[in-house]
Amino acid sequence: METKSSPFISFVGASSGTWQVLSVKAIKGETLPTVKAIQVLKGQEPIYLDVHEWVLKAFISNLRYTERSEKAALDASSIPLGNPSHTMAALIPIKKTKDWWAMTQEERRAIFETKSQHIAKSMPYLPYVSRQLHHCRDLGEAFDFLTWFEFSPEHVDKFESLLKILRETEEWDFVEREVEIRLEKQ
Amino acid sequence: METKSSPFISFVGASSGTWQVLSVKAIKGETLPTVKAIQVLKGQEPIYLDVHEWVLKAFISNLRYTERSEKAALDASSIPLGNPSHTMAALIPIKKTKDWWAMTQEERRAIFETKSQHIAKSMPYLPYVSRQLHHCRDLGEAFDFLTWFEFSPEHVDKFESLLKILRETEEWDFVEREVEIRLEKQ
Repeated sequence: METKSSPFISFVGASSGTWQVLSVKAIKGETLPTVKAIQVLKGQEPIYLDVHEWVLKAFISNLRYTERSEKAALDASSIPLGNPSHTMAALIPIKKTKDWWAMTQEERRAIFETKSQHIAKSMPYLPYVSRQLHHCRDLGEAFDFLTWFEFSPEHVDKFESLLKILRETEEWDFVEREVEIRLEKQ
Repeated sequence: METKSSPFISFVGASSGTWQVLSVKAIKGETLPTVKAIQVLKGQEPIYLDVHEWVLKAFISNLRYTERSEKAALDASSIPLGNPSHTMAALIPIKKTKDWWAMTQEERRAIFETKSQHIAKSMPYLPYVSRQLHHCRDLGEAFDFLTWFEFSPEHVDKFESLLKILRETEEWDFVEREVEIRLEKQ
């Protein structure tokens, strides 16, 4: 696969790649075609599109809702991606409803943290589950966000609990499409 | 110029285009090469790059700081782009500092509105000056925002006042590059 410079991160669903696909499950709305593996390309553009089943493109951006005191707590709890013991991962693309995007900043923040406690409820799991949010709505992609999680095999239960807690929040009422792709490092 | 579908808006600095360039002025930091005209391409990708001097690419996104009561007031005051009497325009690309982007949401909001009153101070000018904010930082572009203004020749003074007021705010201390391109419809 030839590459050229790009500000984007591409998740390439293909027949081979660093992350082997264990399962692809539609949580809400349409699923994605099942693939054997996912290759994550950072700052590179996938060229030979014919060898891929699909490509999800996104970017990492500045914080949109987090406040200073929350950032301090998150930074203290979080572990960066790429931990060698974290051989399990999940890619969960999400699309939120038109109602979500029609809201103003303080209305979205109220659902995100005041009502759903997205940050507060996630906090206990961050020492076990590394996370990265990728944005793609502004690229005209099918999803709004590509969420990415890494964890070790002995902490799969922590990841399951985190998922369950987030999906029970009011924020998740605004999710109209969600696909859960579970992965294992090859 | 051939085109293909794109989620982006491109401001193409070239030898011909809908908007004739009256002046290109560096307000802060490096200028842009002077061009004769600017062509605005919506949802299209400029293909023949050799005929352009430069291309600035961006997208329109959801509101980042505006609150509901402010949105109601802004919507009531604003007039949409494309008014036939608005034959004057300005394209002002802006890049903010690292310090700005290292701030959290409520810190940026505090500078933007509580201290700088960006929305409140702009409000009196919106019946005369149409505005559109375009985002480009996440595309790896040289600027963070491409701001666009349209107004009629008899309201140039209103536009000048709006510019002056915004540049005097604390928010503008975080602008590290700004180029002012004044335009007239051909």
